[in-house]
Amino acid sequence: MNEAAQTLDGWYSLHLLYNVDWASLRLLEEEEMNTLVSELKGFIERQEEVHQKNEGSYAFYNVTGQKADLILWMLRPTVEELNTLELEFNKLAISDFLIPSYSYVSIIELSNYLAKESGEDPYQNEYVRKRLYPTVPKSRYICFYPMDKRRQGDDNWYMLDMEKRRELMRSHGMIGRGYAGKVRQFITGSVGLDEYEWGVTLFSDDMLQFKKLIYEMRFDEVSARYGDFGDFYVGVHLPVENISAFFR
Amino acid sequence: MNEAAQTLDGWYSLHLLYNVDWASLRLLEEEEMNTLVSELKGFIERQEEVHQKNEGSYAFYNVTGQKADLILWMLRPTVEELNTLELEFNKLAISDFLIPSYSYVSIIELSNYLAKESGEDPYQNEYVRKRLYPTVPKSRYICFYPMDKRRQGDDNWYMLDMEKRRELMRSHGMIGRGYAGKVRQFITGSVGLDEYEWGVTLFSDDMLQFKKLIYEMRFDEVSARYGDFGDFYVGVHLPVENISAFFR
Amino acid sequence: MNEAAQTLDGWYSLHLLYNVDWASLRLLEEEEMNTLVSELKGFIERQEEVHQKNEGSYAFYNVTGQKADLILWMLRPTVEELNTLELEFNKLAISDFLIPSYSYVSIIELSNYLAKESGEDPYQNEYVRKRLYPTVPKSRYICFYPMDKRRQGDDNWYMLDMEKRRELMRSHGMIGRGYAGKVRQFITGSVGLDEYEWGVTLFSDDMLQFKKLIYEMRFDEVSARYGDFGDFYVGVHLPVENISAFFR
Amino acid sequence: MNEAAQTLDGWYSLHLLYNVDWASLRLLEEEEMNTLVSELKGFIERQEEVHQKNEGSYAFYNVTGQKADLILWMLRPTVEELNTLELEFNKLAISDFLIPSYSYVSIIELSNYLAKESGEDPYQNEYVRKRLYPTVPKSRYICFYPMDKRRQGDDNWYMLDMEKRRELMRSHGMIGRGYAGKVRQFITGSVGLDEYEWGVTLFSDDMLQFKKLIYEMRFDEVSARYGDFGDFYVGVHLPVENISAFFR
Amino acid sequence: MNEAAQTLDGWYSLHLLYNVDWASLRLLEEEEMNTLVSELKGFIERQEEVHQKNEGSYAFYNVTGQKADLILWMLRPTVEELNTLELEFNKLAISDFLIPSYSYVSIIELSNYLAKESGEDPYQNEYVRKRLYPTVPKSRYICFYPMDKRRQGDDNWYMLDMEKRRELMRSHGMIGRGYAGKVRQFITGSVGLDEYEWGVTLFSDDMLQFKKLIYEMRFDEVSARYGDFGDFYVGVHLPVENISAFFR
Repeated sequence: MNEAAQTLDGWYSLHLLYNVDWASLRLLEEEEMNTLVSELKGFIERQEEVHQKNEGSYAFYNVTGQKADLILWMLRPTVEELNTLELEFNKLAISDFLIPSYSYVSIIELSNYLAKESGEDPYQNEYVRKRLYPTVPKSRYICFYPMDKRRQGDDNWYMLDMEKRRELMRSHGMIGRGYAGKVRQFITGSVGLDEYEWGVTLFSDDMLQFKKLIYEMRFDEVSARYGDFGDFYVGVHLPVENISAFFR
Repeated sequence: MNEAAQTLDGWYSLHLLYNVDWASLRLLEEEEMNTLVSELKGFIERQEEVHQKNEGSYAFYNVTGQKADLILWMLRPTVEELNTLELEFNKLAISDFLIPSYSYVSIIELSNYLAKESGEDPYQNEYVRKRLYPTVPKSRYICFYPMDKRRQGDDNWYMLDMEKRRELMRSHGMIGRGYAGKVRQFITGSVGLDEYEWGVTLFSDDMLQFKKLIYEMRFDEVSARYGDFGDFYVGVHLPVENISAFFR
Repeated sequence: MNEAAQTLDGWYSLHLLYNVDWASLRLLEEEEMNTLVSELKGFIERQEEVHQKNEGSYAFYNVTGQKADLILWMLRPTVEELNTLELEFNKLAISDFLIPSYSYVSIIELSNYLAKESGEDPYQNEYVRKRLYPTVPKSRYICFYPMDKRRQGDDNWYMLDMEKRRELMRSHGMIGRGYAGKVRQFITGSVGLDEYEWGVTLFSDDMLQFKKLIYEMRFDEVSARYGDFGDFYVGVHLPVENISAFFR
Repeated sequence: MNEAAQTLDGWYSLHLLYNVDWASLRLLEEEEMNTLVSELKGFIERQEEVHQKNEGSYAFYNVTGQKADLILWMLRPTVEELNTLELEFNKLAISDFLIPSYSYVSIIELSNYLAKESGEDPYQNEYVRKRLYPTVPKSRYICFYPMDKRRQGDDNWYMLDMEKRRELMRSHGMIGRGYAGKVRQFITGSVGLDEYEWGVTLFSDDMLQFKKLIYEMRFDEVSARYGDFGDFYVGVHLPVENISAFFR
Repeated sequence: MNEAAQTLDGWYSLHLLYNVDWASLRLLEEEEMNTLVSELKGFIERQEEVHQKNEGSYAFYNVTGQKADLILWMLRPTVEELNTLELEFNKLAISDFLIPSYSYVSIIELSNYLAKESGEDPYQNEYVRKRLYPTVPKSRYICFYPMDKRRQGDDNWYMLDMEKRRELMRSHGMIGRGYAGKVRQFITGSVGLDEYEWGVTLFSDDMLQFKKLIYEMRFDEVSARYGDFGDFYVGVHLPVENISAFFR
């Protein structure tokens, strides 16, 4: 198999973003509202249980600005589970008041550029497994964006040879390492699955770090010449105990 | 006739993608819902009958993410049949609860790049006929995307000579061959019929193979320099016996 | 006057595309529906009368796929007549169930590239007049798309000299001639009138010929380097006697 | 001050385009409709009064095709007046049946490229004042489009020196002069005010002249290499006495 | 840390733009309307209090044209406060009649290009602090637009070295200085936070100055070769005492 395809692939990933239809929600009686919110909390609590058992993971945040109000990120071993969860979510009563704004289908991916050359099966390596089947943190802030590697005139990532790409990615990785302890980063691959090639999901307790990290990387050749970015979504953690207050 | 136009063309093809309006659907009485679902199941069963008689074929999948909930792919000998089927589908009662999200008009096409040079009429060749009038599998997963060959500055596919294109397509085909038994691929041509030039419809029992195949191909010069891709849609097989559960 | 502007211009042209709102239409009583359909049929029959008297022409087709359900193409000597017809159409009761999906304003145009150099007034030439004030056929299939000549870096059509453009258009025209008897082609100019520079409307009794013609042309330098295409719409003829069945 | 900024600036300009919601309008009783139309006619008549006193100007046309049904162009000495007029228009009862389709904010602008080099204050020059505070004609046809000067690779208008730009604009102006008496042209500048850099509003009693003028200009280097165009809107004059018939 | 990331960052920033749904608003009884408007005025007055205490700032303007009717700009020390304010605004009764049209998430930013090289902590410098935690003026006009630095072929800002960028920004800054006293400018950084890299918010008592400033800058190499601009929004100040009149 071509070296290019030697990525390591973990859990299937689904980002779902929604706007709240506040005008309709306002028409609900308090009791109806309580029922809706309880049902949603139940859904999130079931996510938490799966997360606790390390059979998947999730994040639930309140997005800043008008592009979305909520982002729900779910990770599972199979795409069927994600389809079932999406269907289940769509059938929650609260979903009548949620307007889909964006979604992303991908798979947790470890790049082969940094791979150790050893005889070991990486899927048996404990460190690798923790990154392929990760425990998503509950940091205060989330940042999600999809991206492509550019194929444009002289700036064509896919026409570079493996050595050059590996070298560029190494310097790129060094910047990320400078933010260790400040920003946690999850890469999901979506070539063939969704409109961009990768999704990047970041977590931090200081939103400014997202801007610092991504701005610093922009001067790195990998981003400067080869990065094409989709829209950026940022948000604030919405713990299950705050869901009632959020909707009320 | 110009060699470029010597494609082999088979059945007419129509991809229809829909979102479900769950909020309205929820308002239906159980009996009404049963009627709607039965009618839809009847439509799908008639697709299956035509498929069994090899007078056409079809696929029906549950799309992952918010871009669509359902994809219905239909193949028929004439475009009139497809128009009639689309009209019939639009008049199903369930269609009042389906919101069109994307569609694609094309024709099953075999490229002339790999053509054998023989005196034989390829339309009489049994192997060719099986590919022009194919039996679509019921694999667990589907992947559909439209694409163009790029015409941009120095990366202009249509200004390459036939020999160069044939050579590039041969290497491209080799990658596909590496996925034989894992991914089944159907190419439909849509030059002059829809917004992109080709539609690619893949089937597999392992969704990861879509990502591996398309990522590997992206480093191939045909994709790297000359491929422009539309959006990617992936989904999970929705057998007729699961339709009731899906909508309920 | 600059040679570039020496096009010959005929009837004004308006393409109107609509989607049908089937869900609302379903709510009509049979009698109401009959009234609506009769009124629409009356409109189309008046088009036919004008067409018979050669005081204009028209086409009415059922579009394949979700981008539109109906395309109505109307040609008239003045733009006032087209505005009046559009207004009249909007006021038909059936229009409450039609959702505008695309429209195109242009003028039947004969290119000056192929012009005979003679002293004759071309507007008095019978052959020219038949093309400027044409009788639109009722072929089984229609194909409509708008297009631009590219102005991009080294591929700038409008920076080529007249001799080069004439030469390129001649070879382009030769391909079209190879489809004589199979495809009828109408060019309408829309520089300064609508978002693209030209509209192309094709008719054929074999939809495959649209794909073959346009694919063959794509390898021609005029299209390969200088053609930028809008969306393609194809459809099946909807004769007045089938309108009732279509809507029911 | 930089010479580039030495434009002469006149009245503030607001283009408002609307689609009519015919389906809802149809539900009105005749008397209600009369009230709505009278109120709109009153608004237009007040525009005419201001226009007669040369304290502003306006145009009201019926747009061809589906992109809009109506275009209202208003010119005034201050942007506050335009905001007030827009608000007043939004509060007309007829506005409940008008769907905003496009708008454009700009300022009547005379280019400095053709400026006479004299000591005179141009704002006191009678000829200049007539162009900065113009009387918009009531020609049969209107054509409106926004545009940018291109900044793309080697085709970067803003990197040319003043002498080169002046020379290019002079030849561009010559083409326009060839249409004197046939087409009247108004340029409004919108750098920093709206999405394009200029708006062009043309009037003529022969719609074909719009196409001829703009097509001829397209071969001029200023347009061919440096012009990026938005959408084109054309329409037919809607005099106040025809407004009732239009809506009925 | 990389010099590129040495920006100074102040308050978090949220631009919210809305269209008014006049047709629905018209249906309200006068008393209901009074309640809605009072509640909105209360919200704006609370903004004013925070602004007076210099614990944040805000602006509220009536946007010209159809892209939006209102722009609300809010600055606060934390993104949580902005999320809470956005949620509070969404729950105002008037919000049922406001349609979100655009929003922007960013952080007040001082570029490092003009930074003085001294040992001092800039966050303790009074001049710097006034710019990082600014008092937004109540000028007659606002202008807001997002922008990117271009990364395209030879025009790639992020591949320039620091010295070249600093030099280009210096000349760019000189133009801005020429408008001191006429235009006040606020830069907010949004790399990693929203779809563009910077938001620019300008205030002036003469709208023409926006056009003059931005047009003059367009000829500067920083904008001419490296500036990619989003849409421009301009508006007129809407003081709290005019809110009732605006909605009525």
